[in-house]
Amino acid sequence: MAISNIRYGEGVTQEVGMDLQNLGARKVCVMTDNNLGQLPPIKAVLDSLTKNGIHFQMYDNVRVEPTDYSFMDAITFAKKGEFDAYVAVGGGSVMDTCKAANLYASNPGSHFLDYVNAPIGKGKTVTVPVKPMIAVPTTTGTGSETTGVAIFDYKELKVKTGIASRAIKPLLGMIDPLHTLHMPERVVANSGFDVLCHALESYTALPYKMRSPCPSNPINRPAYQGSNPISDVWAIHALRIVAKYLKRAITDPEDREARASMHLASAFAGIGFGNAGVHLFHGMSYPISGLVKTYKAKDYNVDHSLVPHGLSVVVTSPAVFTFTAPMFPERHLEAAEILGADIRTARIKDAGFILADTLRKFLFDLDVDNGLTALGYSKADIPALVKGTLPQERVTKLAPRPQTEEELSTLFEASMQLY
Amino acid sequence: MAISNIRYGEGVTQEVGMDLQNLGARKVCVMTDNNLGQLPPIKAVLDSLTKNGIHFQMYDNVRVEPTDYSFMDAITFAKKGEFDAYVAVGGGSVMDTCKAANLYASNPGSHFLDYVNAPIGKGKTVTVPVKPMIAVPTTTGTGSETTGVAIFDYKELKVKTGIASRAIKPLLGMIDPLHTLHMPERVVANSGFDVLCHALESYTALPYKMRSPCPSNPINRPAYQGSNPISDVWAIHALRIVAKYLKRAITDPEDREARASMHLASAFAGIGFGNAGVHLFHGMSYPISGLVKTYKAKDYNVDHSLVPHGLSVVVTSPAVFTFTAPMFPERHLEAAEILGADIRTARIKDAGFILADTLRKFLFDLDVDNGLTALGYSKADIPALVKGTLPQERVTKLAPRPQTEEELSTLFEASMQLY
Repeated sequence: MAISNIRYGEGVTQEVGMDLQNLGARKVCVMTDNNLGQLPPIKAVLDSLTKNGIHFQMYDNVRVEPTDYSFMDAITFAKKGEFDAYVAVGGGSVMDTCKAANLYASNPGSHFLDYVNAPIGKGKTVTVPVKPMIAVPTTTGTGSETTGVAIFDYKELKVKTGIASRAIKPLLGMIDPLHTLHMPERVVANSGFDVLCHALESYTALPYKMRSPCPSNPINRPAYQGSNPISDVWAIHALRIVAKYLKRAITDPEDREARASMHLASAFAGIGFGNAGVHLFHGMSYPISGLVKTYKAKDYNVDHSLVPHGLSVVVTSPAVFTFTAPMFPERHLEAAEILGADIRTARIKDAGFILADTLRKFLFDLDVDNGLTALGYSKADIPALVKGTLPQERVTKLAPRPQTEEELSTLFEASMQLY
Repeated sequence: MAISNIRYGEGVTQEVGMDLQNLGARKVCVMTDNNLGQLPPIKAVLDSLTKNGIHFQMYDNVRVEPTDYSFMDAITFAKKGEFDAYVAVGGGSVMDTCKAANLYASNPGSHFLDYVNAPIGKGKTVTVPVKPMIAVPTTTGTGSETTGVAIFDYKELKVKTGIASRAIKPLLGMIDPLHTLHMPERVVANSGFDVLCHALESYTALPYKMRSPCPSNPINRPAYQGSNPISDVWAIHALRIVAKYLKRAITDPEDREARASMHLASAFAGIGFGNAGVHLFHGMSYPISGLVKTYKAKDYNVDHSLVPHGLSVVVTSPAVFTFTAPMFPERHLEAAEILGADIRTARIKDAGFILADTLRKFLFDLDVDNGLTALGYSKADIPALVKGTLPQERVTKLAPRPQTEEELSTLFEASMQLY
């Protein structure tokens, strides 16, 4: 169980220059995306760097929902810059791009697919030392500031995959809730669904003792270990925060308590899934976002079609839990109760239906689009969606119940409409 | 918030040799005490080292409740050995001694008081790199495997003090519940009280925003930050485990679930207090154990008088909470509820009394000696006990309520008898 360091508090971002000075950094790469370039979070970071005399170069070309091409652009920048530290200011896309840039710039002889998860890439163990990276999250969902995972769209296969290694985990995540105040409503909602799913999936993931293979040498073990008594603490705590604060954070941008709580929940759930792993929602989400046609998400200022990650993840959750609940019904019921279900007279065999219904109500109440149909998919797309899920075995194997291709088809079909 | 890495599971100790190999260690120092020298935990470690071809030297002369002299003996051994990694196998005494040995051997020019907490020592910031240390706890109380704290008796002043720096935190704590099965009853009880107090004190410590001074440069901040939303998660979770499992772990050595749960709770509470800090129980406990006369604790195989740490800490808890509750009564009531009190009709102004009564019942039920009198102290000792508490400002300043010397006297007096 590897846990990241996090620092929490309004205004902590102002300290980043001192931290870099303490690290002895002389040439720092600041990464962000061009939406954030003019906003307070990046201003706070640059002010702190300037004040502490830290020499830096800025890369603001991160793509929202990055691809192998956008990763490679950032890697090229990082290689040229020969940086000795990195600061990522943004959501998961920025932090993940920064992790990849740091990794490949620290190991310039490697090929891009060397560290990409198998079976798409070679899934090599990272043995080179990477530079220290400080992550300043500006959304409340990814938890990427606490994990060793970097996700991207692999264009050739039209599917999401990633790099997963403890080595690329940020040295420090700075949770500064001031940065959440600029978030538009749907960004709060969709990133909140990511927190919800991180918590639900890590809590219901295959228990760590049942995972296989389990390499005898600890260095060869994956970051995702299966659910365990430590990740459970984080998952349940994050789920409680989501149940209490997500709606408030979405509907009232001035509700500082709610937005700060979701910012912490994002990191907490990140620590949980960063060690336990995610499973089917995430595995099925990668083709849902990778195969996007014309859907454009409200409140996202991008020039390409986009199913935001949190939305692509949550949309299959009712169907998936109906399918997985027979394996660990108590945990599914417990999650339903935390999300508001009255389970006093519930039968254990109904756990999946109860959690699925609870999630449907929860999502309807938060204005989530009505299933895959609303995101532009039809039944004709199901074979492609299934095909895109199959290579995600790094996560799908952590589902509490194994899936055949037919079962995956049924799960996508059941997710066409939610209500 | 700096959090240690921990690995949990029956038998994980067998992996320590591989971890050291992965670290490239060529000459390892194994520290333990001579009670443990023949027991399964140390055997498991040595077997793993041998199997993986790791060259090591053994230091088994750690003193239970270490002193400056016993620390210095271990430091001398470590300096001579020029080790490149350390493995501590034992309770808090062993882990703390190992941290100190590693620190001073890594910085051979330093004087012993350089890193000892002010005002007794100079409290210097550690800036030298120390060697990686792996901690294998064999008791279920200290949480030392997760903290950057090393406590010892300073003989000249007859008080406990310590060294506190994130730099000396173990690289990895291996929580192997198999090692708890050999623990005698009172060792389980007393180390469990340490967990109880770590959880209670970190949850009721001064909130991080109210702590002063708060150095602007993060590197100068103490390990103990005051209670905060992250340490709270650990504290409450550990407290729930103590409430559920401590009695079972004490009374039935074969109750693996209970002993394993307490082993985890020890690490969880360690992460909590390692970041939030402890306060008055610990501050007042140091003279209680430092000034010990003839008390010999049951089940401890040592040749000197000894008030076990957990016992010295818990014995003042009812008096202290009656005193501190007016500052944050809700938290005190919440703690009482977790420990079994029915608070449905409780008045908030009675929070301190309710928690104190709950603790008295809890301790009586677990056969705790009846207060300081039973540990060999009388009213005549109170001035010395107060005098020994005054230098503990590193922790006493984190109490939610400041204390005068008179108030400390009253608290010791109120702790003479518990029931």
